[in-house]
Amino acid sequence: MSQKNPGESPLGEFASAIAVKRESDTSFSAELDGEWSVAGAVNGGYLLSIVAQALRNNSPKAPDSLVLSTYYLGPSQGGRADIATRLIREGRSSATFAVDLSQNDAPTITALATMGNLAALPDDVATTASPPELPDPDQCIRVAEAPGDFIKSAPLVKRYDMRLDPETAGFAAGRPSGRGLLQGWIRLADGAEPDSLALLAFLDAFPPVMFDLGRFNWAPTMELTAHLRAVPAPGWIRAKLYTRNIAGGMFEEDCELWDSAGRLVAQSRQLARQPRG
Amino acid sequence: MSQKNPGESPLGEFASAIAVKRESDTSFSAELDGEWSVAGAVNGGYLLSIVAQALRNNSPKAPDSLVLSTYYLGPSQGGRADIATRLIREGRSSATFAVDLSQNDAPTITALATMGNLAALPDDVATTASPPELPDPDQCIRVAEAPGDFIKSAPLVKRYDMRLDPETAGFAAGRPSGRGLLQGWIRLADGAEPDSLALLAFLDAFPPVMFDLGRFNWAPTMELTAHLRAVPAPGWIRAKLYTRNIAGGMFEEDCELWDSAGRLVAQSRQLARQPRG
Repeated sequence: MSQKNPGESPLGEFASAIAVKRESDTSFSAELDGEWSVAGAVNGGYLLSIVAQALRNNSPKAPDSLVLSTYYLGPSQGGRADIATRLIREGRSSATFAVDLSQNDAPTITALATMGNLAALPDDVATTASPPELPDPDQCIRVAEAPGDFIKSAPLVKRYDMRLDPETAGFAAGRPSGRGLLQGWIRLADGAEPDSLALLAFLDAFPPVMFDLGRFNWAPTMELTAHLRAVPAPGWIRAKLYTRNIAGGMFEEDCELWDSAGRLVAQSRQLARQPRG
Repeated sequence: MSQKNPGESPLGEFASAIAVKRESDTSFSAELDGEWSVAGAVNGGYLLSIVAQALRNNSPKAPDSLVLSTYYLGPSQGGRADIATRLIREGRSSATFAVDLSQNDAPTITALATMGNLAALPDDVATTASPPELPDPDQCIRVAEAPGDFIKSAPLVKRYDMRLDPETAGFAAGRPSGRGLLQGWIRLADGAEPDSLALLAFLDAFPPVMFDLGRFNWAPTMELTAHLRAVPAPGWIRAKLYTRNIAGGMFEEDCELWDSAGRLVAQSRQLARQPRG
């Protein structure tokens, strides 16, 4: 269902932006695309997808990140990145890897991941959580239509079609709810259907949940751990983001992603530094 | 407030059990104590404390694990363990490390951590979460007084004074609530006050939350990420454990720890394999 313009790459925008090139048995390079940036640094969710893409290339039997823990050591910039993977343990149906991403020989990400095959998992589901109740996408607020200053500082938001539930978008009109909750819909702007790599990008694509607490700076992520739990069905993904513990100059941000079949397909928690001022 | 018996080590039971011995600038050894075991394997929470203890020894300015992501590669047993630490990045007030724990040259744990100084963090608190409401410890169920068969398979529970809220302990009488929720009180059995190392142990000390869903096997943890957010006040710690997404043969288990001053001092999420049968 990809909606491509004439002359565009046969890969969609997202697939092109997260492409990696093999450099050795264990290493890859990538060209980070500065259009996936926020506040002058390449977005952490986009980087998750690239790290997972490199791992997938070295883990054919277990191509999906069942769990991926990423530590952000410093900002990444558009341009070349080098990715080194190291197999730590290979099991029957899963494999655990360490992976480092560096630019100009300086590490900007270090991560651990256990890879598996989402499509081969048992299909039992006993989830007690409920998907967020959202108005139809047409009734929600398009983030890509935010004021020009906002888009300029966050070109990332144009890479997605993100629609915020008006109930949780008061911050955009200067009326944050104070609950620490954002909800909305997300899909790739290029029209490609979601896969496990896109889910990783979606987990850190929305504006920071701190906006709903009236704290409007972008917050640097220290660590983000993602759990991927099922192959997403085609269509819109529902997202729910919330924070409950703001203390010690840090906050946690939880994100849940629900697919169009009503399954909780991804969960993440990140620890971020609280913006000053 | 340590309650020691005559002839006991000047360190309490917990401090002795998590002691590490320096072997080189970057490596340590430890004697894992099989009394901290469940279902034939050394407990994952106890192992977190040992990993964090080794890191503390190599990070004097940033002694606390602000965030620790641990991947369990296989069961650990009582006996010698070797711990190798590697500094990845040192910042002004924090440092990120990789750490591996192995037994007989086989890795059983690989982890990443960002260390900091909890006592030096800003003291702003804007937490919106509320501590679990619990009856007094005397009105709760003492886990260490469980039937002999249970204790035999889980000697770990005698290392703690754990009291379960009767509202969430129906599983013990064969009447799990089906909510996927356990709540209770915890402190060290040796009477030592909680510190940041004990918090890590507490995060994975309670019976699996799956017991409340009528699934009574112990579940192997694949990954656990812990966030430590404040130095705990002396006294009992309140714990709340819950799961919301049981699917694909795995479940997540979230744990919150609240100190006697009402602060959310630690949060963790683990991904575990669902027990079969």
